[in-house]
Amino acid sequence: MAKLILIRHGESTANAKNEYTGWNDVDLTPKGEQQARDAAKIISNIPISEIHTSVLKRAIKTAYIIADYNDLNSLPITKTWRLNERHYGALRGKNKDATRIEYGKEQVQLWRRSFYSRPPLLDRRDELVGPYRNLDPEIMPKSESLYDSYLRIMPYFQDVIAPKLKDGKNQLVVAHGSTIRALMKYIEQISDEGIDGIEVENGDPVIYEFDNELDIISSK
Amino acid sequence: MAKLILIRHGESTANAKNEYTGWNDVDLTPKGEQQARDAAKIISNIPISEIHTSVLKRAIKTAYIIADYNDLNSLPITKTWRLNERHYGALRGKNKDATRIEYGKEQVQLWRRSFYSRPPLLDRRDELVGPYRNLDPEIMPKSESLYDSYLRIMPYFQDVIAPKLKDGKNQLVVAHGSTIRALMKYIEQISDEGIDGIEVENGDPVIYEFDNELDIISSK
Repeated sequence: MAKLILIRHGESTANAKNEYTGWNDVDLTPKGEQQARDAAKIISNIPISEIHTSVLKRAIKTAYIIADYNDLNSLPITKTWRLNERHYGALRGKNKDATRIEYGKEQVQLWRRSFYSRPPLLDRRDELVGPYRNLDPEIMPKSESLYDSYLRIMPYFQDVIAPKLKDGKNQLVVAHGSTIRALMKYIEQISDEGIDGIEVENGDPVIYEFDNELDIISSK
Repeated sequence: MAKLILIRHGESTANAKNEYTGWNDVDLTPKGEQQARDAAKIISNIPISEIHTSVLKRAIKTAYIIADYNDLNSLPITKTWRLNERHYGALRGKNKDATRIEYGKEQVQLWRRSFYSRPPLLDRRDELVGPYRNLDPEIMPKSESLYDSYLRIMPYFQDVIAPKLKDGKNQLVVAHGSTIRALMKYIEQISDEGIDGIEVENGDPVIYEFDNELDIISSK
């Protein structure tokens, strides 16, 4: 038996400004730091073996705050672009209300909620620098549907996280709204339509307990 | 060619109280956090591939602050007990002035400065919990001379750090006074007597540049 804890990062400066963020690397707000400490308190009785996070600092710093609060600074923390937030393409950095005026409410709703709908593409890919420097240029997205995100997140879950859960080691994933929804879709076998209704709040832990076959024993 | 940067953690609460710390896991002071930012500024023009630190939070947090200051949060950070501070045995947690009264000035000077002298042993080994849970009990020290520390630090340098330097990748080590002195002794081939005179200040970077044979091109 092992537990998997999924935590969305604390409030970011872009959350506070109601902007699409995606792969923009924005910091936590003081409220976001407090949400991380609150999350730490909730999971403080679960002995964690390892932490996984994205290469975006709002998730990384949330993970650091959680680890520090529970005196787990020495735990290994793996950072991977595969756990990044969904790439919001040309919507990135735009105010959510402004996009409704620019593109229409229904279109924006479709981009946000349909599993397969991709926001408008960036004109060109971001440069392959920093944590992306070793990526195949074809992999760097110009925009992602939730399905696109799902496809690049799952190999990390299947190859890295799942074997450790089967091995009985509790794993903590500190990531993003879409990342966590994608993981929940896979784990709970939620339908393409059903995932629309799932919301994940900043700093609100989702906790699964699995048996050694990775069947769910309990979830909350 | 590659650079190796060695940085001693910022001031800890135990440094501020003039206590022997060793493997006690104490936090940074606000002054220590500022020293980390100052160190970050000094090395900001060196592109770093990877960070190595101990399992002690004063070093881990110094590494986090340096990475954040230079917008390198996504860099991999490896934490290993092999980079821990020298284990101060029964002196751990004691005030440095008080030990001079208890054991005599010359004896304390010998423990602090002789390469082979071990402080008084702990009555029994620390428990193998947290980052030490997978250690062979025989490895968990009851006290260490600088030579003992040197012997357990070097395998990590030789097996993990050196190959990456030979591969042209700049490495940052954020660790402790004795760890860094041991690394300097090895790299600069300093004699057992000569290492006595080497002091490493909190947050003061030591920077080596190596050729691909790991011969020193420059140091500062």
